[in-house]
Amino acid sequence: MNAPNPTPHLLPTVNQRPTPPELVAALQQHFGERCSTALVVREQHGRDESSFDVPPPGAVVFAQSTADVVVVLQLATQFKVPVIAFGVGTSLEGHLLAVQGGISLDVSRMNQVLSIDAEDLTVTVQPGVTRKQLNEAVKSTGLFFPIDPGADATIGGMAATRASGTNAVRYGTMRENVLALEVVSASGEVIRTGTRAKKSAAGYDLTRLMVGSEGTLGVITEVTVKLYPLPEAVMAATCSFASLADAVNATIQIIQLGVPIARCELLDANTIRVVNAHSKLSLQESAMLLMEFHGSPSGVKEQVETVQAIAAEHGGASFEWAQTPEERTRLWTARHNAYFAGVQSRPGCKAITTDTCVPISRLADALLESVNEAQAAGIPYFLVGHVGDGNFHMGYLIDPNVPAERALAEQLNQQLVERALRVGGTCTGEHGVGLHKMDFLVSETGVSAVNMMRAIKQALDPHNILNPGKIFTL
Amino acid sequence: MNAPNPTPHLLPTVNQRPTPPELVAALQQHFGERCSTALVVREQHGRDESSFDVPPPGAVVFAQSTADVVVVLQLATQFKVPVIAFGVGTSLEGHLLAVQGGISLDVSRMNQVLSIDAEDLTVTVQPGVTRKQLNEAVKSTGLFFPIDPGADATIGGMAATRASGTNAVRYGTMRENVLALEVVSASGEVIRTGTRAKKSAAGYDLTRLMVGSEGTLGVITEVTVKLYPLPEAVMAATCSFASLADAVNATIQIIQLGVPIARCELLDANTIRVVNAHSKLSLQESAMLLMEFHGSPSGVKEQVETVQAIAAEHGGASFEWAQTPEERTRLWTARHNAYFAGVQSRPGCKAITTDTCVPISRLADALLESVNEAQAAGIPYFLVGHVGDGNFHMGYLIDPNVPAERALAEQLNQQLVERALRVGGTCTGEHGVGLHKMDFLVSETGVSAVNMMRAIKQALDPHNILNPGKIFTL
Repeated sequence: MNAPNPTPHLLPTVNQRPTPPELVAALQQHFGERCSTALVVREQHGRDESSFDVPPPGAVVFAQSTADVVVVLQLATQFKVPVIAFGVGTSLEGHLLAVQGGISLDVSRMNQVLSIDAEDLTVTVQPGVTRKQLNEAVKSTGLFFPIDPGADATIGGMAATRASGTNAVRYGTMRENVLALEVVSASGEVIRTGTRAKKSAAGYDLTRLMVGSEGTLGVITEVTVKLYPLPEAVMAATCSFASLADAVNATIQIIQLGVPIARCELLDANTIRVVNAHSKLSLQESAMLLMEFHGSPSGVKEQVETVQAIAAEHGGASFEWAQTPEERTRLWTARHNAYFAGVQSRPGCKAITTDTCVPISRLADALLESVNEAQAAGIPYFLVGHVGDGNFHMGYLIDPNVPAERALAEQLNQQLVERALRVGGTCTGEHGVGLHKMDFLVSETGVSAVNMMRAIKQALDPHNILNPGKIFTL
Repeated sequence: MNAPNPTPHLLPTVNQRPTPPELVAALQQHFGERCSTALVVREQHGRDESSFDVPPPGAVVFAQSTADVVVVLQLATQFKVPVIAFGVGTSLEGHLLAVQGGISLDVSRMNQVLSIDAEDLTVTVQPGVTRKQLNEAVKSTGLFFPIDPGADATIGGMAATRASGTNAVRYGTMRENVLALEVVSASGEVIRTGTRAKKSAAGYDLTRLMVGSEGTLGVITEVTVKLYPLPEAVMAATCSFASLADAVNATIQIIQLGVPIARCELLDANTIRVVNAHSKLSLQESAMLLMEFHGSPSGVKEQVETVQAIAAEHGGASFEWAQTPEERTRLWTARHNAYFAGVQSRPGCKAITTDTCVPISRLADALLESVNEAQAAGIPYFLVGHVGDGNFHMGYLIDPNVPAERALAEQLNQQLVERALRVGGTCTGEHGVGLHKMDFLVSETGVSAVNMMRAIKQALDPHNILNPGKIFTL
């Protein structure tokens, strides 16, 4: 690796406020064993899937109800101590790290499915319900919830980071799929946003303001999301291409033609190698699209024919079909585990993950140049992409103890982001800003827009106790 | 009509701040003839399609650029005078009325299509471009913009009120279709929100905070929206039913089965009568669904077969097809003009329009009981509905000079809204809150949520100059 010198801004600023013993005593009095200061529990809540190493929070509270969340926020307001909502810890951008100290508020025990309204295609859950748990709960209704980040994340966490995944190209992201929320404000007020109606023009869109606010404007205690009828027919296939460029250009054409493809995922040869090893598969080790088609049998047939023709134009091989539901599940599980497969391919490493999303016509330039730069730099990496959305992830695999490796990865990431911004894209399609992309956010949207976000934050959280130090600094 | 006594809260509170002559002089110096204080111009900008009568604004400025908007907002901030952005004046809820006086900022001359990015399925326009103008501009690309409120509204106004229309059941509303905005803040800062990327997790969703904020948080000066490929096949049909209940129940089943119907509109016999008269049509005067199907030829055929079977189950007559594109246009133009046809059916009347949207399973109860109440009260009305979304409009036709008629209409509206809220719906699906639904907003979302909206407003517009007195009072 040909690495530049590390620069200090690559690591987050840590400035932990003390956790007053009186606060801990008050929490312990209220929550008993559900308030822990044990180091192992705090450490478990003081990290996520990011590459950063920050000392843990001062205490962890396990909430079981909205009322519990209210108590924690009222006490936190009284003592002016940070509160970081915690689901299952799968954030990639340092969202959960206690850079300013405080309380980790674990909502994973708030995991009840509150109301399945199949006849309205909606479900209301507590924030600690995971996406797999949700789908298991609604299975018998013939409906499903499509949003699927790689990890089995909680619905609360997914709402907080505006998550998406492989189905977003057809079904949208959490932005489009959250109908209503219950949120506890910084001062401990319980607020309802939205209704179960499909559309609304009733005042400011607080639902979508909260979705993607990364725990900095409120703690989500209930989420109502849309469900979709399970498609009558589902077909999944892989298609290998001679080059990444061919696979990307085929994707661009699929989207531009308006094919309602349900999933259109890119893996490069590198990634397939590690996925094969991790998931015991034998996919061909070349650039590949993993696709899924949803619809009526004849609708799916039409989509497949169109996409096959496009793929062939770009030199794609014959489709390899996942013939059974079990094979499909195996394929998509392997895809979802690509991140973990990538990280495990270099023992002891951490992944620095990129997340740009660009207008579809610019995907080839944005993606291929980034790959060329990584290869020229000689850094180990994996590449996966929700390419149907113009969103792709490079995972640079670094030794976290070697500053030069981090610096190189961050330099490549910066070049990649700048390229995406130049063509009208965003620095983050789905992972959020967290600690890691605060500078990029300013580059993307400008100081004035970030100042508008700051003004909203200060209005709703005057003591800066809700996940402080994320998205922007105050 | 059996009317209760009128209650004073049915009319908006008017408390106009004076327009300082120094401000008018400064505006006239800058804008010359593009700043007018002529009564006829002010009156034209002092009304909309609502039933309210409020004295006009103190002056009207015709902006031609973002820089013009900046100047107006800087001066308005300096003089602490309200600014009301104005497109073509088709709001239904009093959004444009100068209840606190000030300047009407007419952006209808900012009507350039700035960038058609067909290969990315996006277009960027100035706020004064109307939906028809936009579709004309992109026609040659094979793409279209689906959002279609009845009037030929401006894209800026549609964004500001989170508008939708007949295609929303398939393509979503302005909430789902605005990708990015340029907005001028109260203090005159130019802010960009969003990018042309299809999805993003980059900080607070300022785009969706601005969409639906009714001009109270900023003045929209550019809008980037999604476009869609013109469907390969389009078929439109009407289907008559013996009763409203049958038509509504057929709709519920269409949606619950997940049929990707592009339009699913209900008209009652009353409305068809006035539409026939207004648009010189001869539609059968009974409850009717107007439907449109988009897709591939075989996909459309499948949808039609499914919907025909559902309609038949509910006693629907055979489909009457709009055979040619011209017939289709005629049918949908008639539907878009239903509001105006309704209003014209009673000379001198004003319509008080309802706009509830409910979870689809509750549509029959919500709609049929409202119709029964209107009939029992003997008030003239029309009924149209974007029923595929659970959204319908009663238009109560009142003599604005007879307080008892207004009071009766408002009482029926209140009963209708309360019913919708009881079943998890919203008081406004697409028209916005404006002056007319401020009390309903509190009933719907609670005082705490409205206070959160207030806090945001005060943070972003500390002098309360942006369309003050709308959505909530401060």
